[in-house]
Amino acid sequence: MKYLIKIAYNGANYCGWQVQKNGVSVQGEMCRAAKEIFGDGVKVTGCSRTDSGVHAREYFCTLETLSSAPVIPENQLPRALNRYLSEDITVFSAKAVDKSFHARYDVKEKTYEYVFDNGEQRDPFLFGRAWHIPKRLDEAKMNAAAKCFIGEYDFSAFMASGSSVTDTVRHVTGAEVTREGDKVIFRVTANGFLYNMVRIMAGTLRDVSIGKLAVGDIKSIILGGDRKKAGLTAPPDGLYLIKVVY
Amino acid sequence: MKYLIKIAYNGANYCGWQVQKNGVSVQGEMCRAAKEIFGDGVKVTGCSRTDSGVHAREYFCTLETLSSAPVIPENQLPRALNRYLSEDITVFSAKAVDKSFHARYDVKEKTYEYVFDNGEQRDPFLFGRAWHIPKRLDEAKMNAAAKCFIGEYDFSAFMASGSSVTDTVRHVTGAEVTREGDKVIFRVTANGFLYNMVRIMAGTLRDVSIGKLAVGDIKSIILGGDRKKAGLTAPPDGLYLIKVVY
Repeated sequence: MKYLIKIAYNGANYCGWQVQKNGVSVQGEMCRAAKEIFGDGVKVTGCSRTDSGVHAREYFCTLETLSSAPVIPENQLPRALNRYLSEDITVFSAKAVDKSFHARYDVKEKTYEYVFDNGEQRDPFLFGRAWHIPKRLDEAKMNAAAKCFIGEYDFSAFMASGSSVTDTVRHVTGAEVTREGDKVIFRVTANGFLYNMVRIMAGTLRDVSIGKLAVGDIKSIILGGDRKKAGLTAPPDGLYLIKVVY
Repeated sequence: MKYLIKIAYNGANYCGWQVQKNGVSVQGEMCRAAKEIFGDGVKVTGCSRTDSGVHAREYFCTLETLSSAPVIPENQLPRALNRYLSEDITVFSAKAVDKSFHARYDVKEKTYEYVFDNGEQRDPFLFGRAWHIPKRLDEAKMNAAAKCFIGEYDFSAFMASGSSVTDTVRHVTGAEVTREGDKVIFRVTANGFLYNMVRIMAGTLRDVSIGKLAVGDIKSIILGGDRKKAGLTAPPDGLYLIKVVY
């Protein structure tokens, strides 16, 4: 059986989605919980590799069991898995899918949010959950810069150097920056993302706000394809995967 | 010098505001930070005794130093104190006040929020920050019940048994229940609160929602003055002090 599982997790205490030699991963925790129900041999495949400290309000993975018969009704699977997961990972739903379905390759579109804590002093409830920038951010300017990301481009300038991906063209279909009180939120949707792409975009938007870069620079940074011309990689704490479309 | 300090804290890792023999308290942390700046003999007085695990989005305390001269300009005090505090306590502002000012006795009005996580599965971002109730709550019924708290009454039925307070009359000036997605929020304002009063109110509202109590029962529970007739004491995780008026 293959199940598509919808989960959410607070990544603060994890080394990311992917199983690592050192550190506790979300994938590892899902494997452990699945083994309690299905026994050995369950294969867990995620929709995205999130980094250490990155969060997901919506994330999908598949559980592929050795047996071809259901061990448990799919509507009871979330509660059963949650019993073996700690409070920072939650399973919301499960449904049987075809063997040919792939959690990562079949993704059509993903949306990320990057959260800035823009209070003069840091919000104690956003610790590990946002990037604290005490100086007032200019969300209108950041929004104008974000709009420049929209389109189909080679986003090499917004990819961590050393990444081995060869096809670096992605189609960004939505990008905006809004303010909710002291929170400034960058939201971006694309058919796929390069390694560290959203965090480099967030760092670049910060540079636009503080005047290190101009709104007019964004297009030429994209077209230039030089990682060094974009801003720094924003810390993982502020990054959330919030929507996945198949 | 006496300073009025505005802070916020995530209470998950604290035994409450008040210094205790066992456990780390917010007051103890404030004393420790103040000592780094003012040396020995600083007296820290809070606006309210919050329980273990309870949060504050707005909390006031006074720091009273031995010296009568300012050691540091008051606008620099927040940043200086924050340097010695962990990320779950933040100082927002400081201003010099008269020696006669009292952080607790001079409070005119306080507002608390109690947050229910009403998702079918628990929200991993609300762990330690809400009371998870999987069954759909009836916020309209809860709101009707909350309105019955408004007025000047002897709230003995909503006080932890064993409390030694003699004047149990409080004036509730506002009470409402609203829903924001899967979050249900009970907000209550009064000139003062008895020990565990908001948590007992929250537990009682839950009982109204599940049909264990009727909206019409609330007034007679208040007038009866019997703690056993009200609902259980809701867990501390969902409770936030959000506003203090002097």
